[in-house]
Amino acid sequence: MRLLVVNVNTTASMTEAIAASARAVASADTEIIGLTPRFGADSCEGNFESYLAALGVLDAVASYQEPYDAVIQAGYGEHGREGLQEVLDVPVVDITEAAASTAMYLGHKYSVVTTLDRTVPLIEDRLKLAGLDARCASVRASGLGVLELESDPQRAVEAIVAQSREAVERDHAEVICLGCGGMAELEEAVSAATGVPIVDGVRAAVTVAESLVRLGLSTSKSRTYAPPRPKQITGWPLPTSGR
Amino acid sequence: MRLLVVNVNTTASMTEAIAASARAVASADTEIIGLTPRFGADSCEGNFESYLAALGVLDAVASYQEPYDAVIQAGYGEHGREGLQEVLDVPVVDITEAAASTAMYLGHKYSVVTTLDRTVPLIEDRLKLAGLDARCASVRASGLGVLELESDPQRAVEAIVAQSREAVERDHAEVICLGCGGMAELEEAVSAATGVPIVDGVRAAVTVAESLVRLGLSTSKSRTYAPPRPKQITGWPLPTSGR
Amino acid sequence: MRLLVVNVNTTASMTEAIAASARAVASADTEIIGLTPRFGADSCEGNFESYLAALGVLDAVASYQEPYDAVIQAGYGEHGREGLQEVLDVPVVDITEAAASTAMYLGHKYSVVTTLDRTVPLIEDRLKLAGLDARCASVRASGLGVLELESDPQRAVEAIVAQSREAVERDHAEVICLGCGGMAELEEAVSAATGVPIVDGVRAAVTVAESLVRLGLSTSKSRTYAPPRPKQITGWPLPTSGR
Amino acid sequence: MRLLVVNVNTTASMTEAIAASARAVASADTEIIGLTPRFGADSCEGNFESYLAALGVLDAVASYQEPYDAVIQAGYGEHGREGLQEVLDVPVVDITEAAASTAMYLGHKYSVVTTLDRTVPLIEDRLKLAGLDARCASVRASGLGVLELESDPQRAVEAIVAQSREAVERDHAEVICLGCGGMAELEEAVSAATGVPIVDGVRAAVTVAESLVRLGLSTSKSRTYAPPRPKQITGWPLPTSGR
Amino acid sequence: MRLLVVNVNTTASMTEAIAASARAVASADTEIIGLTPRFGADSCEGNFESYLAALGVLDAVASYQEPYDAVIQAGYGEHGREGLQEVLDVPVVDITEAAASTAMYLGHKYSVVTTLDRTVPLIEDRLKLAGLDARCASVRASGLGVLELESDPQRAVEAIVAQSREAVERDHAEVICLGCGGMAELEEAVSAATGVPIVDGVRAAVTVAESLVRLGLSTSKSRTYAPPRPKQITGWPLPTSGR
Amino acid sequence: MRLLVVNVNTTASMTEAIAASARAVASADTEIIGLTPRFGADSCEGNFESYLAALGVLDAVASYQEPYDAVIQAGYGEHGREGLQEVLDVPVVDITEAAASTAMYLGHKYSVVTTLDRTVPLIEDRLKLAGLDARCASVRASGLGVLELESDPQRAVEAIVAQSREAVERDHAEVICLGCGGMAELEEAVSAATGVPIVDGVRAAVTVAESLVRLGLSTSKSRTYAPPRPKQITGWPLPTSGR
Repeated sequence: MRLLVVNVNTTASMTEAIAASARAVASADTEIIGLTPRFGADSCEGNFESYLAALGVLDAVASYQEPYDAVIQAGYGEHGREGLQEVLDVPVVDITEAAASTAMYLGHKYSVVTTLDRTVPLIEDRLKLAGLDARCASVRASGLGVLELESDPQRAVEAIVAQSREAVERDHAEVICLGCGGMAELEEAVSAATGVPIVDGVRAAVTVAESLVRLGLSTSKSRTYAPPRPKQITGWPLPTSGR
Repeated sequence: MRLLVVNVNTTASMTEAIAASARAVASADTEIIGLTPRFGADSCEGNFESYLAALGVLDAVASYQEPYDAVIQAGYGEHGREGLQEVLDVPVVDITEAAASTAMYLGHKYSVVTTLDRTVPLIEDRLKLAGLDARCASVRASGLGVLELESDPQRAVEAIVAQSREAVERDHAEVICLGCGGMAELEEAVSAATGVPIVDGVRAAVTVAESLVRLGLSTSKSRTYAPPRPKQITGWPLPTSGR
Repeated sequence: MRLLVVNVNTTASMTEAIAASARAVASADTEIIGLTPRFGADSCEGNFESYLAALGVLDAVASYQEPYDAVIQAGYGEHGREGLQEVLDVPVVDITEAAASTAMYLGHKYSVVTTLDRTVPLIEDRLKLAGLDARCASVRASGLGVLELESDPQRAVEAIVAQSREAVERDHAEVICLGCGGMAELEEAVSAATGVPIVDGVRAAVTVAESLVRLGLSTSKSRTYAPPRPKQITGWPLPTSGR
Repeated sequence: MRLLVVNVNTTASMTEAIAASARAVASADTEIIGLTPRFGADSCEGNFESYLAALGVLDAVASYQEPYDAVIQAGYGEHGREGLQEVLDVPVVDITEAAASTAMYLGHKYSVVTTLDRTVPLIEDRLKLAGLDARCASVRASGLGVLELESDPQRAVEAIVAQSREAVERDHAEVICLGCGGMAELEEAVSAATGVPIVDGVRAAVTVAESLVRLGLSTSKSRTYAPPRPKQITGWPLPTSGR
Repeated sequence: MRLLVVNVNTTASMTEAIAASARAVASADTEIIGLTPRFGADSCEGNFESYLAALGVLDAVASYQEPYDAVIQAGYGEHGREGLQEVLDVPVVDITEAAASTAMYLGHKYSVVTTLDRTVPLIEDRLKLAGLDARCASVRASGLGVLELESDPQRAVEAIVAQSREAVERDHAEVICLGCGGMAELEEAVSAATGVPIVDGVRAAVTVAESLVRLGLSTSKSRTYAPPRPKQITGWPLPTSGR
Repeated sequence: MRLLVVNVNTTASMTEAIAASARAVASADTEIIGLTPRFGADSCEGNFESYLAALGVLDAVASYQEPYDAVIQAGYGEHGREGLQEVLDVPVVDITEAAASTAMYLGHKYSVVTTLDRTVPLIEDRLKLAGLDARCASVRASGLGVLELESDPQRAVEAIVAQSREAVERDHAEVICLGCGGMAELEEAVSAATGVPIVDGVRAAVTVAESLVRLGLSTSKSRTYAPPRPKQITGWPLPTSGR
């Protein structure tokens, strides 16, 4: 099967890292296609950028011309998943939700450790809407920006490990979710430092997407995610070339 | 003061109706400016259209060149308010929230009566995120599309009245919120038929926006709605002309 | 229009301060009438005193002979608002609720900073009943009694500022509500010290009351706040003079 | 031991009925003293009357000159319990809470069947504040006023039985609480008709009060229910005679 | 009346201590019968042991040949109460729930202080299912195992007192529940050290069980706790002797 | 990999059906081993039988001598999953939870349609504890016993379809979970009749278990599910033969 793994920002190197991480857990017969939005911010660290990303992801998927079996939205705590579910027939998996529901199989409570403090409420809101917050012990910020994860990996590890330890010791988390699309390579270090299972959203989402495809299940079209009604829309879709 | 009242769809006649309704309750020294997005759907009835509207509203406000004191997002249950709060310094008021918190001063429980069934979950989600759902008795749909409110007002009144009565009798609502930006003119008929207070979101939002301005209060910039960090953004802002 | 702003305690100087604060934000054509209960405690700092205040406020309003357009109950976390809503036809606004719902337009979470620790549960209970607690980060106590706010303003500022800072830094509040009827003059100092918006309940309530009147809305009489049934009542109303 | 069972209304015959019901389950060495407020309404069916009752009960207890071991507030869904807890050292038991927590030992969910529809929100609010609402399936109204329970017992039985059946069949209640101080004599008929356990609040409260006394437990004075601070209070206590 | 007080572990000396504690508050005409499971762990400190205990308690009660009026399950946070309710006609009282609902009569919030940290989530889960968690300030662990309470009582007192103080000072608990079947003798010391009411679950449960019996109430058989349907069961009941 | 799929009842034909259903979605290199408890009820339809099953499943797994990679507890709404998580190092997946969290990827709300009405509260309780209830629209009962699903499949289809339709139309479910281990073969018929996605718990659990194994994740041993402490246990493990 073919899975589209769509980055939420315009940084192509991050798309590549995300796709590589996805491939590490994908089944042998699963092809991972990484997509980068044509417009938006080079990192998503707030609501404005996240709303841009919602459309950027929609556009990236709409512009992709080959068939595919499922779509993974590879941003943590971002807007847009509901829109994809409406316009697509294939399953859509948000990594925030995939991480949380995977973590809930592994321990009584989980925490999310993310980048900047300002993104904590976005993640909390996404978990609340998804109905996955009841067993969330905390969402903690490392204080590092998204792109610093790539540019200063050593400092990233230290900051994420420090907050993960706090999550375990103070908030009684038993599992840690890495709260950013580009954190997969920290998994081992954080696991070694804390002794608890570490869940990377992208990797979790790959297995969820494969599972839904294998089960023959996709988004219900009965109400919330019914296809958009036919109507006059201005300025969409964006032209697929030349922009 | 000057309030921007931004429609979420591209139907200019609806913008005019909304602005007229806003003017009916605005203070003498308040100027109401109705804005219509340059792109998006001619009515918002789902998540995809709502995400388009989130950017359409951001763009409409960004394109407006004069000073203003507050912004009202005149769509019921739509995405985007948090983005506006980040990029603007003036207060931002969403009509979904203005209606709900106004209704909560008037009765023990309130209901929302909206257009299509498919928009009910969007409104429920917005109220949940806003923390205004605890006293919401129900969100009910009349089954009419947004544009049918204008094209067939008599049928609209009947359908809204019927659902409002159900909300009062079955769900124990004591107040009804009209769940669409363009329903203000139904207020009187629904009130007469049900005997309970009817809250129109646009009108409520005008008084809330004026209140915040008069109190000298605006969005906290301390965390969630801090201004976007400086970064590279592609494709935004949209060119202000020629599109 | 004419608004009755009713103090919950018998300290006339506090009534005057509250009324002055209300006038500072009232519209030019709004007359603020401050009322002091004829009986009750000189400060409300607990349930017993608050229940006395519930009747004291009812009596003060019942004894007022002139017409008025709305009533503001100017006590934070006090009992009695529901009774006023039953017996009056005009809107009733509680400052606890006006502060909270105003704060919710300004930030993702808000905190209340009040006087004594023992009043914290009363405020929490009022917010829970009002359905305005979901985005309340914390209710914190300065440790000062109500009357100390007047007698030792410098110490009051320091204590309120200290707790407000804790609310912002530890509890992630983005807005602070001043949790006492007589704290309005602290607004500026607390705002300067914390950098977040500060909401005074009395001032917020004035704009809410004016808004409801302007919108032509008042308490729903359909169920919870229907007028009391005709019945035999002993000892009420209290004689309007000579007590 | 001696238990004060305080009616919330001024109808002495109801006080007698309540006291008789209490005696039917009291231990042999427990003396039941029924008290009737000196002022207030002849039945409590709304917030105004309930706030009067809060003070009426406080006054009735304050006026009682003999020693006693615990106080039962025998009104369903009424205000005032917190005030009693502050001013008294002995345990205070509210029948709304005693019924609910007794019912929770007996079935997965319980319902309350009360008098008028307008009192339903009061009961719901009391259960929410008491933290006893999570397993409440519904609060249903029979449509009969408090005093009709005495004046037309046959109709009362029919109405209560009808609503109890609905609670069991539609709301999945497994236990019914009789939601009024004066309903104890309906217990048998409702039980026979529905086949589920029926809890009368007064009777339940007697056993709770005896239990607390026997366990040597009383209200915590550490925070919420600490004794009122010394301060100037006007108009209280009421003169104990001549009124 | 005769109450079965069933220990959840196989340590007979603990059964004796529990029964003695129960007798200290039982009415003169109440006979307390302590039962020890024939199989299971010598202390319950986790889910596996608790599931063993669920059957061990069922077996102990099933093996008891004399008549009895109610059953108390004397383990804190343990599985099994719902099974007893199904197979028995007499009331069943779990000490976790009896302690919590007793505490709720005494203060605005309560905390539980238990043995090992690993049992905290079990207690939290039991309180959540019982719908008694809304006013639970915290569940805290002393770090001592169940059997250490007996073997090192002085250290037990110190550890429990230390956590109880934290519960009062940090978590704003106004009442402390002793979170283990064998803690009753600590009641006095903890009370003296904290100044708040201390609730022992076994003692509370005795008064609850007596109350239910006196009120003529028992488990509703209408739905959740209806008797098991007739069916083929293998390996149960266990042979009553020779094991 | 090898997955143990453990039936909760003693009916071997149901184990076979469950295992066959599991195999239908398992990966090519996954071996499904169906296990039947040595003791317990021939169907689980209540708490007593479910507590027996908790131990029956523990015993079945403990008696299995070969290596395995994960365990699926194939009972809907049953006790016992937490015990397995404590004693095992491999992942444990409960079908109730696997169905719910799979359904949550597919629609805004889901319902469960199960067998007897008396099992509804068990399922509701398991979903509440799992923190997966926020988006559960309803749990509905078909009125058929577990074994009737096998003995009268036509009637089963009709009853399940009827309740599924109610769930969609009245409760606004967008996805249906089949609430019994042995319902997988109804999937197609219910899907055809309702037009919404149908989730079978066993099949969903197979993909979840495979996903966890592939991700290298297993139960956190840091707190709740730490291995049982060394202690004296009587009567366990059961002898592995001769029973």
